[in-house]
Amino acid sequence: MVPGEIADYVDVPELTVWDGGDTAPIREARFYVPSYMAGEWAFEVMRGLPHLEVCQLPTAGYEHALPWVPAGVTLCNGAGIHDASTAELAVGLILTRLRRLDDMARAMPRGEFLHDRFDALADKSVVVVGAGGIGQALRRRLEGFECDVVLVGRTARDGVRARDDLDDLILEADVVVLALPLDNSSRCMVNAGFLSRMKDGALLVNVARGGIVDTDAMLTEAGRLNFALDVTDPEPLPADHPLWRAPGVFISPHVGGNTSAFLPRVGHLVTDQVQRWQSGDPLRNVIVS
Amino acid sequence: MVPGEIADYVDVPELTVWDGGDTAPIREARFYVPSYMAGEWAFEVMRGLPHLEVCQLPTAGYEHALPWVPAGVTLCNGAGIHDASTAELAVGLILTRLRRLDDMARAMPRGEFLHDRFDALADKSVVVVGAGGIGQALRRRLEGFECDVVLVGRTARDGVRARDDLDDLILEADVVVLALPLDNSSRCMVNAGFLSRMKDGALLVNVARGGIVDTDAMLTEAGRLNFALDVTDPEPLPADHPLWRAPGVFISPHVGGNTSAFLPRVGHLVTDQVQRWQSGDPLRNVIVS
Repeated sequence: MVPGEIADYVDVPELTVWDGGDTAPIREARFYVPSYMAGEWAFEVMRGLPHLEVCQLPTAGYEHALPWVPAGVTLCNGAGIHDASTAELAVGLILTRLRRLDDMARAMPRGEFLHDRFDALADKSVVVVGAGGIGQALRRRLEGFECDVVLVGRTARDGVRARDDLDDLILEADVVVLALPLDNSSRCMVNAGFLSRMKDGALLVNVARGGIVDTDAMLTEAGRLNFALDVTDPEPLPADHPLWRAPGVFISPHVGGNTSAFLPRVGHLVTDQVQRWQSGDPLRNVIVS
Repeated sequence: MVPGEIADYVDVPELTVWDGGDTAPIREARFYVPSYMAGEWAFEVMRGLPHLEVCQLPTAGYEHALPWVPAGVTLCNGAGIHDASTAELAVGLILTRLRRLDDMARAMPRGEFLHDRFDALADKSVVVVGAGGIGQALRRRLEGFECDVVLVGRTARDGVRARDDLDDLILEADVVVLALPLDNSSRCMVNAGFLSRMKDGALLVNVARGGIVDTDAMLTEAGRLNFALDVTDPEPLPADHPLWRAPGVFISPHVGGNTSAFLPRVGHLVTDQVQRWQSGDPLRNVIVS
């Protein structure tokens, strides 16, 4: 049982699309996919499904679902489904700010031809903080751009530097991309001290979570540094927040994951998970079981 | 002898940087590099250099130099030096328009949070018209983006479709990128008929020359189709031209090639060419000899 839009991309037998009304048509459900951005009702309904075995979320986040999962039901998240879309946006944000496409967009209504020599991504040193799905997807996308890319993870491993090296790495970085989860180790990790180590004109890109960066510290450094942010703290950013108009800052409204690439990838994951479950193979992305 | 900025990236012995004044210091010059965007004086001076053997241009375009090259002097162009920068901009233009980063930039001064589900490049079908240096550089950059890329050249060859197939290819394309030279076969190639074959919502990107596209036909299709243009006809586009404000159109001010990536690549080419010339190896990019 999956929500309508996602169902268009799911290829499994015995599929029921539930409209959120009477639960009678789904009383026998054994595998359940709540809608994207669903309210609590979409999770509460699981308590009335006596045969339920698996709840597959269409999101990487899962904290909101935990309180509602009945005992004995396996909860899987959607890790990976936003990687393509979010990594792609990171490239878009880098190019937009380095090449000043945002300034050019704003100059268009005035018919201003802002020709000048701007930065290119080619030859630049890029540090990607976060070596999970999004970080790896970003590295694959940057491979053709003639730039130098370093991935930084919690611990060093093949092709990945340790977070302990970050203080040194950011000294030489032209671009720093945040693509790591928000947790106690990353909250406000990018503070005034972090930003002060970045060189003049360097670019910080955030496609992770707003809370990783200290907003006041960004406002202080805006102009000396450049920022391209898909996420902010607070979020949504109030219309009168100074970050909207700070120099060298580009903001997209948290559109990293929710694109045309989303539904096919959820559909593919659900299809694969149902096949695994029916064949008795281990499920992917298990959060609780 | 090379202009100052380029000279910073040239590694050859017996280098003279000429300031454009008295020609006495360069009377013995045998290998000459005119400045980027130089006026006629920078070409006319060649007539007073009796020992000149090679003129290496810092541009891919060479028509402006032809009338000034003395008999017996070899003229080489800068084919390839803009490939990285221009291909990179093409990716930036695709992502800017598909993901509506231009609309977001314009909404920023109003503090508007334009969240919605927009298109991603992932899963899209991209047709690149032009299989030269820029087209190949663009294909390398698009490899990691989970999209389908077809290159179209004058004639079919390995990995390249023929221009005769273009009428069929554009019917299914989500993105068409123009990266071919302007000549009699390409002038106004993208006319009303061409655009009418593109599907609703498709995106045309032009990083080639403005004259390849019929501007009036674009204005007619703007809104049904999307456009991201680094070059236009006329150029520079007058401030009151309707293309600046047409729906679904993003314009950058001919900044494809002139970026931070330009000087190192010119310097590398000049260094390599001087070494070839001194060793008696064949020069690259020979236009006339």
